[in-house]
This record gives sequence, structure tokens and C-alpha cells, in this order.
Amino acid sequence: MVQSSKKNQGVPEPTIRRMPSYLAFSEGLLKKGQEFVSSTQIANYMNIDPTQVTKDLSYTSIVGKTRVGYEVRAMVDILSSFLGFTVMDQAFLVGAGSLGSALLHDDGLENFGLDIVAAFDVNPGIVGKKINDIEVFHIDQFRDLAQEMKAIIGIITVPAEYAQSVADLMAAWGVKAIWNFTPARIKVPDDIVVQNTSLYANLAIIFNKIHTDKEEAL
Amino acid sequence: MVQSSKKNQGVPEPTIRRMPSYLAFSEGLLKKGQEFVSSTQIANYMNIDPTQVTKDLSYTSIVGKTRVGYEVRAMVDILSSFLGFTVMDQAFLVGAGSLGSALLHDDGLENFGLDIVAAFDVNPGIVGKKINDIEVFHIDQFRDLAQEMKAIIGIITVPAEYAQSVADLMAAWGVKAIWNFTPARIKVPDDIVVQNTSLYANLAIIFNKIHTDKEEAL
Repeated sequence: MVQSSKKNQGVPEPTIRRMPSYLAFSEGLLKKGQEFVSSTQIANYMNIDPTQVTKDLSYTSIVGKTRVGYEVRAMVDILSSFLGFTVMDQAFLVGAGSLGSALLHDDGLENFGLDIVAAFDVNPGIVGKKINDIEVFHIDQFRDLAQEMKAIIGIITVPAEYAQSVADLMAAWGVKAIWNFTPARIKVPDDIVVQNTSLYANLAIIFNKIHTDKEEAL
Repeated sequence: MVQSSKKNQGVPEPTIRRMPSYLAFSEGLLKKGQEFVSSTQIANYMNIDPTQVTKDLSYTSIVGKTRVGYEVRAMVDILSSFLGFTVMDQAFLVGAGSLGSALLHDDGLENFGLDIVAAFDVNPGIVGKKINDIEVFHIDQFRDLAQEMKAIIGIITVPAEYAQSVADLMAAWGVKAIWNFTPARIKVPDDIVVQNTSLYANLAIIFNKIHTDKEEAL
């Protein structure tokens, strides 16, 4: 394995998680016409220490200037590119029910470099239709389309009990990363990336905090 | 402050995050007709240690039986209720653009106890319409409707640069928790719960991992 470039390698996950916020903040400043931004200004916005901001940005090619800080335009360009938002990656979505079709409706994903090229389901009421111009195929066609379209990201939005079998199918047919929106835990070969995003887990945290506060106040 | 009940108080966030997966697993077993489940079986599914499962479940009223484990039906009932999924909480959504309307299309949220009662936007092309039977009002009507409808959760799906002003509006008009889907960091009074869910931050992590692997393999 020759490591000709490893620009993004070894970047801590918390750093990657903060960067879209730095990007959003910089885009806001750009619209307001601000030319430079300091690490202190970013730190205040984020409620974190300025040294953390400096450290995070040191993973990128952004260079700050003494006294004036970072150029806002460069922040936007370099962060978008660093985060992979400027290159399109093709994705398959399996499970075009309520959450799945919700994601198919979100054009924002495309702006952030995710191009959902096909959706799959088993429901005869959905298969064959188009959602936001994306065709919904029967899951039995997954193998053929995977060979033809070569999407590298698989999005799972099926009911939790089917998540593992969908993950197996994706792993078998060339998907390199799985974005799992179900609360199910899936097992895949080591070379496949899994990212879990459970809206309902986040919802549970909100409910827990509200209801605890409520009870505390009784 | 009289603490008459503090059932869910002091439950660690990682525990709350794992519980929807325990619930999903139990629901799957229930459908298959399995009557009991052991902590080891849950631990294998989750790829964690059985003692962690036992500890997590000890926060709830679920009681395991020696040799047989936990009753599956009780797991489903008690976890759903513990996580707040069986009680409806009303929510307002501000920003009925692509991500916002995507969430309005997700009936799954209602099954998990979140009832979005009204949406708000400024776009004349959207205001006055209904998305999945939920009316979209002009943001200027927020104050009046907040007093009338008393939603306690505010969902923010506006462009990042407007997130703070929407949060201010929500904080002023009685929202107790804010679910922020933008990459912006928002500031609110201490008694308001903020939950950040940035799909794009999760996407950035996927891209980073795929692209790093790609470069490694060159």
C-alpha cells in the first residue's frame, strides 16, 4: 500500500464534526462581505477554545495571517473541498418509505456532494415511481444496477429488522460506505465504512431532557 | 424544587443513545415470536459488553429473570415508554425548504412521539401550502401560533445564517427544546435544551473515511 497522499488521514472525528460549522459560519460572513475572520471570532461562535480552532484548521491548507486572521473566501473554498462537499459521490438508497422519501426530497444532500442515483423498495405501491426525479426500483434489481451504476455509498432507511440483510447486499455488491439511518446495529466487513445516524436516538435524548426537567420542576 | 420523581434523571447520554437500538432489536424478536432475550444476546447484537447492557437496562424498570433473561414484550413496552416515544410532544418546524419538507414527510417521527403541528417559512411559494397535511405559515405568525398551540419543541431547518434568529424567536415564545438541523451553533438560555443533528457533518465523516481509504490504496 503506497501512501502517495494522506491529506485527510488521521484527522480526529470531532474535528471533522466541527468543520461544517466553521464552513457555515464562514459562508455567513462571506455573504455579509467580511474579508477576514480570527480564530477567536470562530471560537466565540462555537463556544470552544481558540486553540482548538487553530488546531482543527491546521489539518487543512488554510493559513492564518498575523493580526488579521484567516481569509473568509479561502475558508469557504478550502473547507468545502476538504470536507468532500465539492466532489460528487453517487449513492443508492434502500427503503423509500417515509424517512427514505424524506431524504430523496432533500436537495441539500446534492449540494453537499451526495448524488442519490437510485432508490429501492419492495412495496408495489412505490416501486416504479419517481420521487424527486429519482427512480424507485425493486430491491431484486439491486445487483444489476449496482454493477451498472457503481454507487459507492449505500443509504439504509428500511425498518430496523431488515437493516442487516440490506447491509449484506450492499457489502456484496461494491458499496464502500453505508449510511445507516435505522436504530439497528449492522455488521459489515472491516473495509466498509459505517456511519449511524439515528434521528430517533436524538429525539430520545430531547424527550429525556425535557421530561426530566418537567419532573424536576414539579 | 421538589423532586417528586426523577426516574430518567442522571441517565448517561450514551445509554439513552443505545436504548433505541435495544428497542429495535426487541421489536424484531417480538415479531419473530421470541419470548425472552438475554443480555449476552443483546450485547452480541450491539457489539458491546454484556455488563454494559445490564447496566443500561438497570436505569429502567425492566427486570431480568435468572437463566431466561428479559421478557421481550416487557422490553418493548418499557423501553418505548422510558424513551418518551409513547407520549406525544408537539413541535413547530421553521424552514420548510428541502430538509424541512423532508422531515414533514417523515411520518416515522409521529410514531416516535413527535407531532409537528405547524411549519413556518418566509418563501411566498411555500407559505399557505400544506406539506403532508401540515400547514406552512409565514414566520410573522409564529408569536400568535406559539401562544395558541403551545408546542414545546422547535425544529430548525433554515439556512445556517438564520438559525440564531429563529432560535431567539423560539426561546422567546415558550419552546423548551430546540432540535437544530443546521451546522450553525446556536446560543439559548440555560433552561432550553438544544440537540444538534447535522446530516452534513455525518456526511463529511463518511467522505473523509472513503477518500482517505482511496488515497491510501493509490
